[in-house]
Amino acid sequence: MSADSQVDNFIHGGNVHAWAREHGGSLTSILDYSANINPLGLADSVREAITQAMDHVIHYPDARAVALKAAISNYYQVDVEQITAGNGAVELLYVLTNTLRPKRVLIPAPAFSEYERAARAAGAEIEYAYLLPENNFAVDVSLITRRFNAVDMVFIGNPNNPTGTLLTNRQLECVLAEARKTGVMVVVDESFMDFIVGDQAYTCRPLLKQYNNLVVLHSLTKFYAIPGLRLGFALCAPELADRLHAAKDPWNVNLLAQAAGVAALADKEYQLRGRELINLEKNLLYASLKTLPGLKPFSPSVNYILIDISGTGRTAGMLRQQLGQHNILIRDCGNYPGLSPYYMRVAVKLPGQNKILLNVLDQVLR
Amino acid sequence: MSADSQVDNFIHGGNVHAWAREHGGSLTSILDYSANINPLGLADSVREAITQAMDHVIHYPDARAVALKAAISNYYQVDVEQITAGNGAVELLYVLTNTLRPKRVLIPAPAFSEYERAARAAGAEIEYAYLLPENNFAVDVSLITRRFNAVDMVFIGNPNNPTGTLLTNRQLECVLAEARKTGVMVVVDESFMDFIVGDQAYTCRPLLKQYNNLVVLHSLTKFYAIPGLRLGFALCAPELADRLHAAKDPWNVNLLAQAAGVAALADKEYQLRGRELINLEKNLLYASLKTLPGLKPFSPSVNYILIDISGTGRTAGMLRQQLGQHNILIRDCGNYPGLSPYYMRVAVKLPGQNKILLNVLDQVLR
Repeated sequence: MSADSQVDNFIHGGNVHAWAREHGGSLTSILDYSANINPLGLADSVREAITQAMDHVIHYPDARAVALKAAISNYYQVDVEQITAGNGAVELLYVLTNTLRPKRVLIPAPAFSEYERAARAAGAEIEYAYLLPENNFAVDVSLITRRFNAVDMVFIGNPNNPTGTLLTNRQLECVLAEARKTGVMVVVDESFMDFIVGDQAYTCRPLLKQYNNLVVLHSLTKFYAIPGLRLGFALCAPELADRLHAAKDPWNVNLLAQAAGVAALADKEYQLRGRELINLEKNLLYASLKTLPGLKPFSPSVNYILIDISGTGRTAGMLRQQLGQHNILIRDCGNYPGLSPYYMRVAVKLPGQNKILLNVLDQVLR
Repeated sequence: MSADSQVDNFIHGGNVHAWAREHGGSLTSILDYSANINPLGLADSVREAITQAMDHVIHYPDARAVALKAAISNYYQVDVEQITAGNGAVELLYVLTNTLRPKRVLIPAPAFSEYERAARAAGAEIEYAYLLPENNFAVDVSLITRRFNAVDMVFIGNPNNPTGTLLTNRQLECVLAEARKTGVMVVVDESFMDFIVGDQAYTCRPLLKQYNNLVVLHSLTKFYAIPGLRLGFALCAPELADRLHAAKDPWNVNLLAQAAGVAALADKEYQLRGRELINLEKNLLYASLKTLPGLKPFSPSVNYILIDISGTGRTAGMLRQQLGQHNILIRDCGNYPGLSPYYMRVAVKLPGQNKILLNVLDQVLR
């Protein structure tokens, strides 16, 4: 086991730096299927905004993030008072759990592991609600609400990572109504929502005014391909937003990320292209993966696909190693609670890149 | 009172964004004497590193910050295991207080207000040890150690902001030894230490191996003029560093800041020029300020000067307003606990800029 994999028990995809160190390659020589980032890459408008803002890094960032929050408010149709800007959505998980200090947290599993890590950092105990492969990992609302008497917070990824399952906001309203009865805070992570064409049936943003036990988390780094810059936000009742603001470093969102966010949210053409590309390619990649021997992909909703590879007789760790020899990095999902070592996740990338992945997989598996 | 001044009770200098919004100017039209940033500005080497790294923002930052920590370890002669990299030093104040959850925190006042804000966010109560103008705000070691029975954490800025007072590491070792007896964690903020020519008599870095009740905080944004990028670090015993790592977002330091930090720490020429410039100019500015009617500046140790302006009959708020009409922004220190409304702070900038400040002050005060 390398030093890089011993950072802690919460290993993520997208660690191209460790990969480059271990394999001696450069960041650009890797085909990274382990991080779920928009394959269109950096928008020209965003690159231009960063370049323009570079001379201003000699100043502190705007602690109120006025321009960024105005852009978020306008794009997502929410009130400025509901917005907390974050150094990535993940920072806000920690700010939120440190502020609310939940005692017991419910997490449908498998899920993004930072929910658990942030909750534990704030002293919470974790309860899992296991999602089952025989149900295609669908989130059973009644299975979750039934446990609300025993917890004070629940995290729901919508769409969920790594399973790709998606709940409608009608289903989530049932969760919210039940949660309110027992004082449970519902954190809905919509970090991949921007990839969905027409999110009106899914996003919980319109429910914010009715439910003050709702927090919507949103990342801007996946859809706009800026994970290196860190940018995300939380939406919640203004009273809670004030508490989150008081619990964090006032300059948490760096000046370049603020500038990038404003430019990104104004780039309608990039948004359209990104959604169209992923919507088409996710289905093509899914269909092709199904034809490969031993692979059982789960139907994707956004830009990643979970695959049961038990039919290959190989663990995801083994397959990751084999694909690595072809400079392809995939996500071994063996460390997700609720998944066996026979699950892997791949991102949806550009047609030519997906062809390379499929060819290499075909070669390796036959 | 404008909306910008109502963010919370912890108003800082350097808010050029609010200033530009209120006064309709651009960021570059302001002569910002309110933020203590190296007036040499962005080093060419740092600008080059950011530009080079820009294509990599489509990747996550290195969660282990390997290259950055190696550079810090090498430059400051500390072990990699002692380092926690931060999204600015301020983020680490919050991570630290959330991790250790002190009940009562001692703060010599006046001091950087984020010590108090971070401690309160983690639920601590604050005790002040007031520093007195008649002693030139010198930190009296016995006055602090005498109160160690009643607290579990103390913050000491060295040099202290806004007073500029400086303790030797011999004095601080007395504090550390006393603190250890009563289980008090000593947080020494060395964020301005890089401005000091020959810091061997002052820095507590060499004491880290002996005292596991010591945390040294360090910012890289002031000396290298990159506050907009956010970059700092904490040094402490490896066991505590592990806990701090577990308590924060793994990707907290953005990719451009990591690249900038590596380049900055390698730029010996910028470091030399910065220290020489500040060392010379701080004394010249101090001497000139003393000649102006009604001003009583306190002897500076680094790149800022605290001034008692009660002799002018004006509050710092009034003078700030007057200087603002000349596009000069100063720090009204009236909101520091332990200071009257008759204190202001100015940064030390380039000779030509300092001349403008002195001329305008002369004009306004006569």
